[in-house]
Amino acid sequence: MTASDEKRKIRYAVVGLGWISQVAVLPAFANAENAELVALVSDDPTKREDLGKKYQVQKTYSYAEYDRCLDGEVDAVYIGLPNHLHREYTVRAAQAGVHVLCEKPMAVTEQDCEAMIVACQDNNVKLMIAYRLHFEPANMQAVEIVKSGEIGEPRFFSSVFTQQVEAANVRVKKALGGGVLDDMGIYCINAARYLFQDEPVEVFAISASKPESRFQEVAEMHSVILRFPEDRLATFTCSFGAAPVANYQIVGTKGDLRLDPGYDFQGALTHYLTIDGKTQERTFLPTDQFAAELIYFADCILQNKDPEPSGIEGLNDIRIIRALDRAVETGSPVKLGKLEKQQHPSAAQIIERPPIQQPELIHAADPSGKS
Amino acid sequence: MTASDEKRKIRYAVVGLGWISQVAVLPAFANAENAELVALVSDDPTKREDLGKKYQVQKTYSYAEYDRCLDGEVDAVYIGLPNHLHREYTVRAAQAGVHVLCEKPMAVTEQDCEAMIVACQDNNVKLMIAYRLHFEPANMQAVEIVKSGEIGEPRFFSSVFTQQVEAANVRVKKALGGGVLDDMGIYCINAARYLFQDEPVEVFAISASKPESRFQEVAEMHSVILRFPEDRLATFTCSFGAAPVANYQIVGTKGDLRLDPGYDFQGALTHYLTIDGKTQERTFLPTDQFAAELIYFADCILQNKDPEPSGIEGLNDIRIIRALDRAVETGSPVKLGKLEKQQHPSAAQIIERPPIQQPELIHAADPSGKS
Repeated sequence: MTASDEKRKIRYAVVGLGWISQVAVLPAFANAENAELVALVSDDPTKREDLGKKYQVQKTYSYAEYDRCLDGEVDAVYIGLPNHLHREYTVRAAQAGVHVLCEKPMAVTEQDCEAMIVACQDNNVKLMIAYRLHFEPANMQAVEIVKSGEIGEPRFFSSVFTQQVEAANVRVKKALGGGVLDDMGIYCINAARYLFQDEPVEVFAISASKPESRFQEVAEMHSVILRFPEDRLATFTCSFGAAPVANYQIVGTKGDLRLDPGYDFQGALTHYLTIDGKTQERTFLPTDQFAAELIYFADCILQNKDPEPSGIEGLNDIRIIRALDRAVETGSPVKLGKLEKQQHPSAAQIIERPPIQQPELIHAADPSGKS
Repeated sequence: MTASDEKRKIRYAVVGLGWISQVAVLPAFANAENAELVALVSDDPTKREDLGKKYQVQKTYSYAEYDRCLDGEVDAVYIGLPNHLHREYTVRAAQAGVHVLCEKPMAVTEQDCEAMIVACQDNNVKLMIAYRLHFEPANMQAVEIVKSGEIGEPRFFSSVFTQQVEAANVRVKKALGGGVLDDMGIYCINAARYLFQDEPVEVFAISASKPESRFQEVAEMHSVILRFPEDRLATFTCSFGAAPVANYQIVGTKGDLRLDPGYDFQGALTHYLTIDGKTQERTFLPTDQFAAELIYFADCILQNKDPEPSGIEGLNDIRIIRALDRAVETGSPVKLGKLEKQQHPSAAQIIERPPIQQPELIHAADPSGKS
């Protein structure tokens, strides 16, 4: 690393100005010392103008102008588009030599994910999937607690992740890559994987939907069972049609750890660690998970390191989600071929630096509404 | 009711002096004003002598002497035997004209349950299955909260119920009617049924076991999905090989209610009712669930009322559990034939009288040990 690298900031374009970009990613640049927001990409001229003004970004582009944005003005893109566009916008960035931080779910199909991985490899750019909880202290501390053996051998995981989503939301549009597993279940699947530090071998799901217009293209909810090696199980229910709940519990031979809430980014997360009938409660104040992602990915680019969560991490979740779709369609459990085992996240990189204070979040849009 | 009936006490024999009888049923007679403990039945002479002395019961019988016990000395039996003996001891009591309060699970097979129901009907004796939570205020208040619409339409149920069970315990002996669904899963199944006030139509389970001697006859754990009418789902994991956890959550369109713990009888149960992001916590001090059962069943006999939970209530759970076994064996979901819909419990009968204080429980034996 040269002296100029040390001072260099990675220039990001934010592509897609929906809810998550507005409420979390754009404000996070204020906390990301090695990252600079230099461009906005959206087809909504009002968003471009208002957000350009708000964040003092001169360069704004429509989707048709994306290639121009990629032409030397940015080092990296954050892709916060509807899921069905992740592949195209990632591949185009890679081909332009621009690094890609892509929101999860990585894409719609396994083929999409593989094409994204190959495009980034071929063009020698970094690819990271934006699993924000890999940068969140309560979750990473949970990984460490499980690894430490404090709860004994982890035996099973159980989780609930739900909210009400309106009919107009992209997340209930099948053609846009919507779906409750893609959008919410992915958190439960990913948590089971990082807590067990392993990949499931067999999956099953049952879906159910009230007869409402918002659930015509995608199911209201899924209840899921995943079988992991060493005879461990994970179950969860995720829903677009229930009051907001976001908790999980991992139960071991000697104790259990519950996070409630466990998946949020706008409030504190709390651990309830129970050993021998005694429960220790520990609250983790909200940190800026998005700034942590931006900083880490910028650092990977500057230091030429391979990011974790990688494209393979994103692909593995999509493989599981699509296998769950097949289980629902066929009414039978689906065995998974051997997944490339991931280097799962560790608390080390978070713990060695103080948590980033979260800025006051602007509730620009309703999470349950149109993005 | 005559004046003499008003003062009459129902004379009970306790049949089987294992853990639950020692720790809960025998002490409960002190709180049951219309019930009298008059006989003990066990094949263990030490238990007969020690417990006979402790509870001042003169008449004690071996299993071979059971018919003598039934011959005019008792009005009712409480059956706390290993599950595979429930049918025989119920049928013999019924044939002797003695009313039966039988511990859950009701029996091993649906045929057993049906035979028990028929024997009690034919001999004109009352049959009740000892679902203690139907007499527990926190659970019955949960039923009322769901019925009230406070959480909106109930959409799904999620639960964890686990403990460590030793290799010597009857509950891990297949031939004695053991099994983690029979013993622990039954609480989750029954709770989903009383909270939804309905019967499941399709069930699925995956089981998993560590290679330990205690899990050679019965599985360590099951993860289960039940589909209910109106597209509602219930999931739970029950285990004999994990630290003790006993919670459930019912999530509706407008809010959710979590009970943690939710299934215990030796400690307080707590409600966490969340509506619009605000959580109300309410702790229910432990009550004597067993005395409430003894009193209510005695009252049913004295007043000639049909007890709830009935034999059909017990049968319905066994049908579900055996269907779950088939799901595990075949690896496919099992559709359930129409179950006779039950009059589910209501808080009314509990709420109209003050909770019965729990006596100081004597920890005569370890719940995880031999009973």
